[in-house]
Amino acid sequence: MGETIKVIELVGTSTDSWEDAAQNALNDADELLENLSGIEIESQTADIEDGQIERYKTTVHVAFALQDR
Amino acid sequence: MGETIKVIELVGTSTDSWEDAAQNALNDADELLENLSGIEIESQTADIEDGQIERYKTTVHVAFALQDR
Amino acid sequence: MGETIKVIELVGTSTDSWEDAAQNALNDADELLENLSGIEIESQTADIEDGQIERYKTTVHVAFALQDR
Amino acid sequence: MGETIKVIELVGTSTDSWEDAAQNALNDADELLENLSGIEIESQTADIEDGQIERYKTTVHVAFALQDR
Amino acid sequence: MGETIKVIELVGTSTDSWEDAAQNALNDADELLENLSGIEIESQTADIEDGQIERYKTTVHVAFALQDR
Amino acid sequence: MGETIKVIELVGTSTDSWEDAAQNALNDADELLENLSGIEIESQTADIEDGQIERYKTTVHVAFALQDR
Amino acid sequence: MGETIKVIELVGTSTDSWEDAAQNALNDADELLENLSGIEIESQTADIEDGQIERYKTTVHVAFALQDR
Amino acid sequence: MGETIKVIELVGTSTDSWEDAAQNALNDADELLENLSGIEIESQTADIEDGQIERYKTTVHVAFALQDR
Amino acid sequence: MGETIKVIELVGTSTDSWEDAAQNALNDADELLENLSGIEIESQTADIEDGQIERYKTTVHVAFALQDR
Amino acid sequence: MGETIKVIELVGTSTDSWEDAAQNALNDADELLENLSGIEIESQTADIEDGQIERYKTTVHVAFALQDR
Amino acid sequence: MGETIKVIELVGTSTDSWEDAAQNALNDADELLENLSGIEIESQTADIEDGQIERYKTTVHVAFALQDR
Amino acid sequence: MGETIKVIELVGTSTDSWEDAAQNALNDADELLENLSGIEIESQTADIEDGQIERYKTTVHVAFALQDR
Repeated sequence: MGETIKVIELVGTSTDSWEDAAQNALNDADELLENLSGIEIESQTADIEDGQIERYKTTVHVAFALQDR
Repeated sequence: MGETIKVIELVGTSTDSWEDAAQNALNDADELLENLSGIEIESQTADIEDGQIERYKTTVHVAFALQDR
Repeated sequence: MGETIKVIELVGTSTDSWEDAAQNALNDADELLENLSGIEIESQTADIEDGQIERYKTTVHVAFALQDR
Repeated sequence: MGETIKVIELVGTSTDSWEDAAQNALNDADELLENLSGIEIESQTADIEDGQIERYKTTVHVAFALQDR
Repeated sequence: MGETIKVIELVGTSTDSWEDAAQNALNDADELLENLSGIEIESQTADIEDGQIERYKTTVHVAFALQDR
Repeated sequence: MGETIKVIELVGTSTDSWEDAAQNALNDADELLENLSGIEIESQTADIEDGQIERYKTTVHVAFALQDR
Repeated sequence: MGETIKVIELVGTSTDSWEDAAQNALNDADELLENLSGIEIESQTADIEDGQIERYKTTVHVAFALQDR
Repeated sequence: MGETIKVIELVGTSTDSWEDAAQNALNDADELLENLSGIEIESQTADIEDGQIERYKTTVHVAFALQDR
Repeated sequence: MGETIKVIELVGTSTDSWEDAAQNALNDADELLENLSGIEIESQTADIEDGQIERYKTTVHVAFALQDR
Repeated sequence: MGETIKVIELVGTSTDSWEDAAQNALNDADELLENLSGIEIESQTADIEDGQIERYKTTVHVAFALQDR
Repeated sequence: MGETIKVIELVGTSTDSWEDAAQNALNDADELLENLSGIEIESQTADIEDGQIERYKTTVHVAFALQDR
Repeated sequence: MGETIKVIELVGTSTDSWEDAAQNALNDADELLENLSGIEIESQTADIEDGQIERYKTTVHVAFALQDR
């Protein structure tokens, strides 16, 4: 196996902030994957209830090194 | 595991219509994955044979909730 | 399972050229996956050390047919 | 007032199809506005429940002629 | 002559649906050209009269094999 | 009310030039709105009759300060 | 009236941060509109005075349900 | 033959202005084609000689109705 | 006829490399057209068979000067 | 030093027109740089005061040949 | 020299946050340049080590007024 | 001075290949700048004479670390 990197798309959520939503996506990715190498913010949206942001949603691309099966 | 969503790219095919091709991609995703939450159409192409559409191809993004391993 | 195709994003690397980096990504994908059907170049970057290209990096999309679990 | 056109963004919904969702957005626009002249599909998404499309959502741009206040 | 493909842009029209408008563009292309190989939907707009869609317009890219003059 | 700005999309028309079409959109916006602050050209198209430009159409984004109801 | 959603573009401002500028746009929208359902960040700019950020500006899209007139 | 429209890409040139370059492209298209219906500006560049604009170049899309062969 | 340039889209193919596929598209264009002036690479894809690239496909835009009929 | 070209981004301003704003950017570039070879319009905005365009702003890319230090 | 603005691309870095990385880019720009007028966030990435964000990287465009040499 | 990186746009040229054109841009950048860290291919065009590629042109973004004046 070479040094090939795979990139996946995740949407993290948080009730606090867009940055925290990105961190939550990273934490979950770290639970499922090894050799994480990078992250990029793709978009930042939020659900609104009664005029307030109820749930921050940050779409990220997470990169990690492929490993032999 | 938080409420993180993963988004994958699939290309559904059909001999009937672009909407049916999207539905076939969704059906196959539903066989392999759980907690599907959303779908988005990315592009719609088709192969042509003798001046007729032979195979409709619809590229979609499918979202589903990540689960603990 | 229909004829649904899945598309993933890989970043191949090489010390020789961008085309070789794409080939390395394809080789690694072929080790992990079956029924590869297509590849598309998304971007071509490189790391530089002392004014010379040290590592070519080619981001590709690789397509393969989904199979029953 | 010249022949200036205004363009607004709407998201139509339907339980039947993406085309029906676009039509519903148009119908609602026609209730609120006059002199509608054109419509363009921007994106097509859907919410999924138990592996099935529950709600088709079509984002459209609707154009209509501005009128004197 | 190699296996070079040419891609042209057409706008099909229909009073019935966006899919029918795409099919009409394909039919007309098939009258004028040979060796059609593929079609891709680029955009979907429509003219509106009295709050109703009067003319569906689908912009497509149509591909066909180049032939010796 | 903070210093929030709203941005709307207009299509100005003219028989003279694309710049005049933009100006006509601005004039009409100024009739309907207050506190206009900025304008941006999004696209420039035209209808053709007998090989001549019959109607210039300039799509613009117009920004204005939101006010208390 | 169906469940059609309208999407408008606002630019929020703040002397503190880009996130606060987005919140200010949301607060002003909530004063003028009902049934707000979502928000998306489109761009983040700022005016600079004497080398310091003087005014953060966040462009957002805000979605809300259309209501009968 | 239906009411299908074909769209081609031309680059007009002029020593006077970008608008004149677009007009020159239209004039040449009108010499070669019939049933021109629309034009859209895609980009505006220019060659520079001795610090002065020597040749304005405007890329346009020109639309015309397809006719039976 | 002015100095108007026409731009067409071709997809060249090759069993050797993406650069060779571009060259093949250019060679075929040169057989059919005169006054070729420029070429631009739009995208690079390939078909895969048994884990190996079977056919390189390079989409290019080719520019040439329009001539009197 | 080869024939390498550098491309910079400038925003020209004018009280008269967008084309004049582009020309002003070019004039200033010509004061600071040599071997200017090309210019491309990227965007056209304007500040508005009392419903009138007060300042036209044209963003351009200007190209010039790199020279030995 | 007119009121021409130049725009450059910088990538700021920080171990704390994406907003701090943007501020660091601005601080460094302010050390090298005068008359800074604006900043825009282009993208936000980060390097990851052992599942944690090690270095936040924010790409920004910084605008400043050109001055006579 | 922090670890801020600057990104500039160059167009390399070559009579041999697009990859060589990128290398020439890099070589010239290395003559004028220090601490080059990365390069990205933005576009690949070429001038054609008598049906043959006469000059390959590769637009690249080159990144380098900012230093104290």
